[in-house]
Amino acid sequence: MDDVVILGVGMTRFTKTPERSVADMGQEAVLAALRDAELERSQVEAAWCGTELSHPGVGQRVLKDIGMTGIPIVNVENACASGSTAVQSAMAAIKAGMCDIALAVGVETLSGKPGLITEDPTTDVMWGSGWLLPSFYALLTQQHMHRYGTTREQMARVAVKSHQNAMHNPYAHFHKLVTVEEVLNSPLIADPITLYQACPTTDGAAAAVLCNEKTARRFTNKPVRIAASALTSGTLKTRAAAVEEMVSRAVQKAYEQAGLGPSDIHVAEVHDAFAPGEIMAYEDLGFCAPGEGGEYAERGLGEIDGTGVPTNTGGGLLSRGHPLGATGIAQLTELTWQLRGQAGQRQVEGAKNAIALNMGGTVFELEANACMITILQA
Amino acid sequence: MDDVVILGVGMTRFTKTPERSVADMGQEAVLAALRDAELERSQVEAAWCGTELSHPGVGQRVLKDIGMTGIPIVNVENACASGSTAVQSAMAAIKAGMCDIALAVGVETLSGKPGLITEDPTTDVMWGSGWLLPSFYALLTQQHMHRYGTTREQMARVAVKSHQNAMHNPYAHFHKLVTVEEVLNSPLIADPITLYQACPTTDGAAAAVLCNEKTARRFTNKPVRIAASALTSGTLKTRAAAVEEMVSRAVQKAYEQAGLGPSDIHVAEVHDAFAPGEIMAYEDLGFCAPGEGGEYAERGLGEIDGTGVPTNTGGGLLSRGHPLGATGIAQLTELTWQLRGQAGQRQVEGAKNAIALNMGGTVFELEANACMITILQA
Repeated sequence: MDDVVILGVGMTRFTKTPERSVADMGQEAVLAALRDAELERSQVEAAWCGTELSHPGVGQRVLKDIGMTGIPIVNVENACASGSTAVQSAMAAIKAGMCDIALAVGVETLSGKPGLITEDPTTDVMWGSGWLLPSFYALLTQQHMHRYGTTREQMARVAVKSHQNAMHNPYAHFHKLVTVEEVLNSPLIADPITLYQACPTTDGAAAAVLCNEKTARRFTNKPVRIAASALTSGTLKTRAAAVEEMVSRAVQKAYEQAGLGPSDIHVAEVHDAFAPGEIMAYEDLGFCAPGEGGEYAERGLGEIDGTGVPTNTGGGLLSRGHPLGATGIAQLTELTWQLRGQAGQRQVEGAKNAIALNMGGTVFELEANACMITILQA
Repeated sequence: MDDVVILGVGMTRFTKTPERSVADMGQEAVLAALRDAELERSQVEAAWCGTELSHPGVGQRVLKDIGMTGIPIVNVENACASGSTAVQSAMAAIKAGMCDIALAVGVETLSGKPGLITEDPTTDVMWGSGWLLPSFYALLTQQHMHRYGTTREQMARVAVKSHQNAMHNPYAHFHKLVTVEEVLNSPLIADPITLYQACPTTDGAAAAVLCNEKTARRFTNKPVRIAASALTSGTLKTRAAAVEEMVSRAVQKAYEQAGLGPSDIHVAEVHDAFAPGEIMAYEDLGFCAPGEGGEYAERGLGEIDGTGVPTNTGGGLLSRGHPLGATGIAQLTELTWQLRGQAGQRQVEGAKNAIALNMGGTVFELEANACMITILQA
């Protein structure tokens, strides 16, 4: 069966634009991805749209004013992994022979909405459940500190690096350097997570055009192959164990699909909705042993010129921003640029294999809804 | 590439159960489908959940308390075609070789929610848009009456037949006969549509277990082959033309995929959210020529013992009920029972080929969001 490749990617700047609609932002990303793929709108045969909070009809709303309805459109939801789920769904349809060229778009407008993740911790209640995502991550983090001696400074280093990388990403929400001290002294949200260790409220959209490898040969740009796409959901274990197990199973499946291991990876995008998440991701992806993620951050191994795997070169969720449904595709957009050598001042030289960890949970009792691991190859 | 078959189906009774959660109803349908397929929960490798109004995390909420999380779960939305979209997504993943056995579940709880379609026309405003689905269907119907001379009595006949069929379906919302006079004299919702020509507010869930044909040979029950699955969205034409075009393109694609035509079809399920919808569906599916749908109803050709294509044998949306995300799978459940000869007193003798028309629109400017045509074969 033919492999599936990414032919084009595009995104809006991630920022606060309460005046813009989901449709408006989605369109900008779609048109950018089509330009990048050097395709006409009429060449897209089917579309998948990922969003967490903008159902129903989001894909239709995005595509109608740019004359792209008529084709099959499917809207998908998988919490903060909705974007990468849209990509996997498009990939499945191509592999199934249902279409040759497909679009995946992810979009979310969060500014002006009651906070899921917000700068104001006092309003950070999702649908009144009383179970807050920052608190949940804080508990996971406390556990990590207790088991492994991970320090607050190590976590702050993740936020510092994230802001450094975002300085060179014109699509990022923040263009501002922060110091370890500033991160640690920013307002406490849920101990040990401080404000600068939490992703901001961001609006944005990202899109990718996919096709099968055979079709891609007709095009002149550099297609990026999807070498693995592995999705899991959480199980009924205790909450922390459910997350760990969900992620580790997805990672294992993805490495198996790609026939690669951690030492083959040159660049990574991981789900740092909160800074400690990146430390856990270093371990989950096998970049270091369990418990060594804090030191990995402290030694700067994940920096663009670090000796480990450069991680979140685009600024990650912390500094690029985290418009929920868009994030998974923004990660793949950054990795596509990296694999093509188009990442400018944040380019990881010679990157050939890239991995993305996109995960999501809703606060409806089950916190571990989805984990998607995607491996891309130049 | 292997064909995909339906190995098992199941549904809740469609009725008003405001005390039951989406998760609870979904679980009942899933477990029924698994029993029908003679499968253990652990044999399901991936799941798709269709809902219009219960995002986010609906599939995870349905599956977690029955120990079925851990596997890939994707939630899909396509307005009132969300259920059949979940089936198509599961089918695509199987065809793509991503899994062998997949679950599709559709679920919606509408009672107690502000009305999308409700018995009380004064509250029938979806998200304050001011553009009501009954009004939209009423305009389509007025146009049909004007162009073809379709009569109010002909439309009422659809509702009468629907209630007759539902009498023999234990899963149907209504078990009550109505006469043409009662239908015409029921309160006017949007001229010419009266109350008994509009689907009720219904809660419910339906599920189907799918697998590839090769895997199906290991099982003893009668698999039903998915011979076609064609999805379209609406274009930017005038609203009525957009619906007509969306449906006709999906129908054409489906017949082509299956290598069948209207004269090969033995039983049909169509999207009669409002009674005139069934008359239009007779025409759209080629059971009669354009404009002859009214006469088709009047002559009873779509009745179970009619000489045309028995249509909505389970009561349709009008009398079985229309829990949005569940409807598409309930249609396929009814057709699976028909093709297996398990439809009891509503059995169409010797049915080998069946077609389902599931469509949906949200009232966000674009009324024609999705049309899915599925053709099943014994």
